Amino acid sequence: MSIDELCINTIRILSMDAVQKANSGHPGAPMGMAATAYILWDRFLKHNPQNPQWINRDRFILSPGHASTLLYSLLHLTGYDLPLDELKKFRQWESKTPGHPEYGITPGVEATTGPLGQGFSNGIGMAIAEKWLAEQYNRPGYNIIDHYTYAIVSDGDLMEGITSEAASFAGTMQLGKIIYLYDDNDISIEGSTDITFKEDVALRFKAYGWQVIGPVDGNTINAIAEAIKEAQNETRYPSLIICKTVIGCGSPNKEGKCSAHGEPLGTDEVSLSRTKLNWQYAESFKIPDDALAHFRKAIDRGKTGQDKWQEVLDSYQINYPDEYKKLMEDLTGVLPQDWDEGLDTLFPDSNITLATREASGQVINLIAPRIHSLVGGSADLAPSTKTTIKAAKSFGVDCYSGRNFHFGVREHAMGAIANGMTLHGGLIPFVSTFLVFYDYMRASVRLSAFMKQGVIYVYTHDSIGVGEDGPTHQPVEQLAGLRTVPGLVTIRPADATETAEAWRIAINNRNNPTALIFTRQKLPVIDRTTAAPAENVKYGGYILWQSSDIPDIILIATGSEVHIAMEAGRLLKGMGIAARVVSLPSWALFEAQPEEYRETVLPKNIKARISIEAGVTFGWERYVGSEGVAIGIDRFGASAPSNVLYQQFGLTSERIVSDALKLLNR
Amino acid sequence: MSIDELCINTIRILSMDAVQKANSGHPGAPMGMAATAYILWDRFLKHNPQNPQWINRDRFILSPGHASTLLYSLLHLTGYDLPLDELKKFRQWESKTPGHPEYGITPGVEATTGPLGQGFSNGIGMAIAEKWLAEQYNRPGYNIIDHYTYAIVSDGDLMEGITSEAASFAGTMQLGKIIYLYDDNDISIEGSTDITFKEDVALRFKAYGWQVIGPVDGNTINAIAEAIKEAQNETRYPSLIICKTVIGCGSPNKEGKCSAHGEPLGTDEVSLSRTKLNWQYAESFKIPDDALAHFRKAIDRGKTGQDKWQEVLDSYQINYPDEYKKLMEDLTGVLPQDWDEGLDTLFPDSNITLATREASGQVINLIAPRIHSLVGGSADLAPSTKTTIKAAKSFGVDCYSGRNFHFGVREHAMGAIANGMTLHGGLIPFVSTFLVFYDYMRASVRLSAFMKQGVIYVYTHDSIGVGEDGPTHQPVEQLAGLRTVPGLVTIRPADATETAEAWRIAINNRNNPTALIFTRQKLPVIDRTTAAPAENVKYGGYILWQSSDIPDIILIATGSEVHIAMEAGRLLKGMGIAARVVSLPSWALFEAQPEEYRETVLPKNIKARISIEAGVTFGWERYVGSEGVAIGIDRFGASAPSNVLYQQFGLTSERIVSDALKLLNR
Repeated sequence: MSIDELCINTIRILSMDAVQKANSGHPGAPMGMAATAYILWDRFLKHNPQNPQWINRDRFILSPGHASTLLYSLLHLTGYDLPLDELKKFRQWESKTPGHPEYGITPGVEATTGPLGQGFSNGIGMAIAEKWLAEQYNRPGYNIIDHYTYAIVSDGDLMEGITSEAASFAGTMQLGKIIYLYDDNDISIEGSTDITFKEDVALRFKAYGWQVIGPVDGNTINAIAEAIKEAQNETRYPSLIICKTVIGCGSPNKEGKCSAHGEPLGTDEVSLSRTKLNWQYAESFKIPDDALAHFRKAIDRGKTGQDKWQEVLDSYQINYPDEYKKLMEDLTGVLPQDWDEGLDTLFPDSNITLATREASGQVINLIAPRIHSLVGGSADLAPSTKTTIKAAKSFGVDCYSGRNFHFGVREHAMGAIANGMTLHGGLIPFVSTFLVFYDYMRASVRLSAFMKQGVIYVYTHDSIGVGEDGPTHQPVEQLAGLRTVPGLVTIRPADATETAEAWRIAINNRNNPTALIFTRQKLPVIDRTTAAPAENVKYGGYILWQSSDIPDIILIATGSEVHIAMEAGRLLKGMGIAARVVSLPSWALFEAQPEEYRETVLPKNIKARISIEAGVTFGWERYVGSEGVAIGIDRFGASAPSNVLYQQFGLTSERIVSDALKLLNR
Repeated sequence: MSIDELCINTIRILSMDAVQKANSGHPGAPMGMAATAYILWDRFLKHNPQNPQWINRDRFILSPGHASTLLYSLLHLTGYDLPLDELKKFRQWESKTPGHPEYGITPGVEATTGPLGQGFSNGIGMAIAEKWLAEQYNRPGYNIIDHYTYAIVSDGDLMEGITSEAASFAGTMQLGKIIYLYDDNDISIEGSTDITFKEDVALRFKAYGWQVIGPVDGNTINAIAEAIKEAQNETRYPSLIICKTVIGCGSPNKEGKCSAHGEPLGTDEVSLSRTKLNWQYAESFKIPDDALAHFRKAIDRGKTGQDKWQEVLDSYQINYPDEYKKLMEDLTGVLPQDWDEGLDTLFPDSNITLATREASGQVINLIAPRIHSLVGGSADLAPSTKTTIKAAKSFGVDCYSGRNFHFGVREHAMGAIANGMTLHGGLIPFVSTFLVFYDYMRASVRLSAFMKQGVIYVYTHDSIGVGEDGPTHQPVEQLAGLRTVPGLVTIRPADATETAEAWRIAINNRNNPTALIFTRQKLPVIDRTTAAPAENVKYGGYILWQSSDIPDIILIATGSEVHIAMEAGRLLKGMGIAARVVSLPSWALFEAQPEEYRETVLPKNIKARISIEAGVTFGWERYVGSEGVAIGIDRFGASAPSNVLYQQFGLTSERIVSDALKLLNR
């Protein structure tokens, strides 16, 4: 057995054994893709196992995350900090080898994958970050940022719509350093892929503007190596290498069958596979010394590679000190001092009305010149979401340093691409669409939160305030939905001044995603001389205004309904009823405050409470309690002018007053 | 001006005027596609304006729903029950002409469109229904079901991932009677489509297995007509006709520009457009007599067409009485008598444990032979979701009467295709995936609810009970999310017996979607001799068990946590504490019960309450009140065996007991 074959079989055996020991998992794909992955990692992948954070490493993503033992095997074998014991604890509580690869848990895992199509799209975002940083910072003789983005992708990935969106975008943007290896094994969970997937994948990717290589035999070492070289040589178009593989390769009775996909082979079949692969060792998890020695050469290669790069960087620092400083700022995410200067005085005039999306646009254009790594874009709605950085160009073939991204009508990929940008490092991305279209991209947002990525989601047109476009475009349940996502900070500011503070929080929130929720319609700018300052947004909720320290009733509102609550508060005051108005732009931030702060805002003993929000009332019992009233919209919206809808749906100060009188038995 | 030109300009003028009067809307697409749409409706579309419900009509979908005035104009002009006054009330409160077309509001609107890609995918579902019914019921000489499915689709539609999924599926399934007209106008909201969409659409659709025709000039009548004929003649592959059009065609200063897309032209430009189009009438909404007379010929054509068809059907009824009877049952949705016989006794044995997904599979296979219109499928997870109808074949080129659908890893399109099936009529579809992947298809589910379609969503692997596959595959916030959707009935049964009742409700729920939530892991079958009967599921929530009529504490649970609550209830009983266990499988159904019923289950005066559910606690305050405790999982899950996770996350009877003692100050 050649050393290459020995190494490939080592991966197969380790993967098979880990799944068997866990008695749970997916042996088929790791065994099928072992040769291809080995060649990539052995001959091509630029990485430093002892420093997985090296910024100029090639990125490698395993998009079909269920094949995780393939990646864990490679990480262990090439010398990452992932002991063999962790492979033996595959899928167990608090191991570093969860069922699907998780970013932040396992050194060398570049992205959490498993939900199909996400990894494919993350890679597009990483390639964008590489291209953008290279364009910004590389200088003649100094290719500081210069790496490939590799991924293994599967049939399932290619069936998902998000992949189609991302591939079309990558083709248009001509991201030539993307090299994806397609594990074309003809097998899906329900049987042959032919039962549902007879499209011509090569033709489809050519249509997107990709170079398509192959099919090559995924077990023929030279063919794979030649294909990867060919992909590297194509610098203009992204490359898809079609690798014909056999799922469960090496398992005499299961290879090529869907039964190899998602369950252990079984002890008998594991034993038979050892025989078929000419494996000399009966014990599980045995790694031949020769194989390990060969794999571990990656450590020296990696160190040498990074050392050489560091020399170039040191010289760059001397010759391009300004660029070096900016690059380091971008990579470390250190914000320039005073980046937020003037935010608190940006909207001094309370005599105007301003849509919060408009205010947001003004904030973006105030801070963008100061934060050079801030980039943004929209799913073909920038003129409506007001997310264009006016002083910047568009990212694309004419300008890879552009800061405005035209994602097209591709919300799902947009979110995953933004995740890829932050995973790569060097960029602070904000991405935008209408709030109702959050539904098109929930899976990507979930992964932002799960991976703790500081992506900023800008969702405008946040309620029936959308007006005439009607219920298909009016979110009612999306705001509640955002609030259910663990770790996601959702902020729905009440006016322009809260909008500025919301942006301050979002920019500072580098280790979690933020969703900023803005109106289409104009809102009064709150007069802060008679109300609490907007900086209180950082507490999530605060006493905006009250007619007495000991209120009879508390009115709680978010966003565009706060001014209605204020109006009601004043009406009640005129009737001799003391009302407190609480602005509650962010439940997540409010719930993170100490109990005593929350008690000062919403004292337990005041049970007369009314909430008002232009969305479903689901969840509001948390704040209005069992005895309060939640005013909202527990149905879909309607098509009519915004002001008509507010009247028809009863989101008015009169309604609040009427409910207040009932609550107080007046 | 020829009569054709006059008619085409009538559409343009009406569309432009309606948008102008509303001072809101999208004039560009209707003006650009007027000629193409006119030719389709005038020369090809088989429909009966006076009976929009005729089952054998061609279906027409306007996928870019923002172009709604195009459709409203055609409906009014060809004689549907849509008076001109309604066009004058475009986008106003309670008009029949909302901003985007809404199914159920406007006669002749086949699907609610606007969220891009949905209409495209609905059409695939309609074509499937046509094919399936034709295969089941047509006989030599009796093509009872025989129609085309047409759609206009836009650049935005084609960028959306859902479209890619649906197109690939339609190609594999060879749905030859799909004819889609692609409005290729080179313009998106942010500018030229070139900024983000340079793919070769023709090549891409060829890759999917479609016939691609054109590009043809969307204003050249003969070219369009020839293209549609060519599409009709291709019976094996779906057809995409690429129509090169000019957005805002007829507007001298806005045509071909993105400014024509989403706002009124303005009164000056409206006037200039009249001139450019050689329009003789200065007043708005003027329909020339000749044009109206020409359009209204559709009424006679439609009546004649349906009358002829009815003759054939009458003869069919005589010659094929059994088929006729079954067809009528399918089309009217009348369920066969006794379809649910034996459901209540299907799981008599409380000594076993059974995953609710397994129980669901048994229910499906009990009822499928009785309900011939019941079809189902999965996004490549049927062996796991247990949704295969064992006695039936797979739908596909070898068997268009198959009842098992292999949707592939295409969740988003799967939902929209199911909507298309029910919109067409004749089928009761259930579609399935893991609950966490509800995130991939939320937009389709929302539209099921909004359109009141009786689609059944089967979501399995409903919690951390997923176990080793880990947090990427463990839903925590999805159940709360489902509950926020207005009109959607979500049911999470506690065991096999509740599962049977949940299916009974879902099958009967023909005018709203149902989401059935099932476990991966095994659960005890509740012993109904000592607990209330499972038929109580119909109330959404019920007293399952209690140790006293006057309980000290109420334990509320859903699904896989009910048996844990039961265990806690018994432990508390042993400690002399009277507990009531409430099973609350469906919030939507429970909230639809009269106040007095809900009060018997959850009396206001019993404030000691604990809920337990393996998901976020968001929303549970509704039932546990301000003084209760909600036990849940307000974080992402983890990768480990299911039983370990339940322990680690504190979803145990011991935890309930401990919290109960605290609540009761014991």
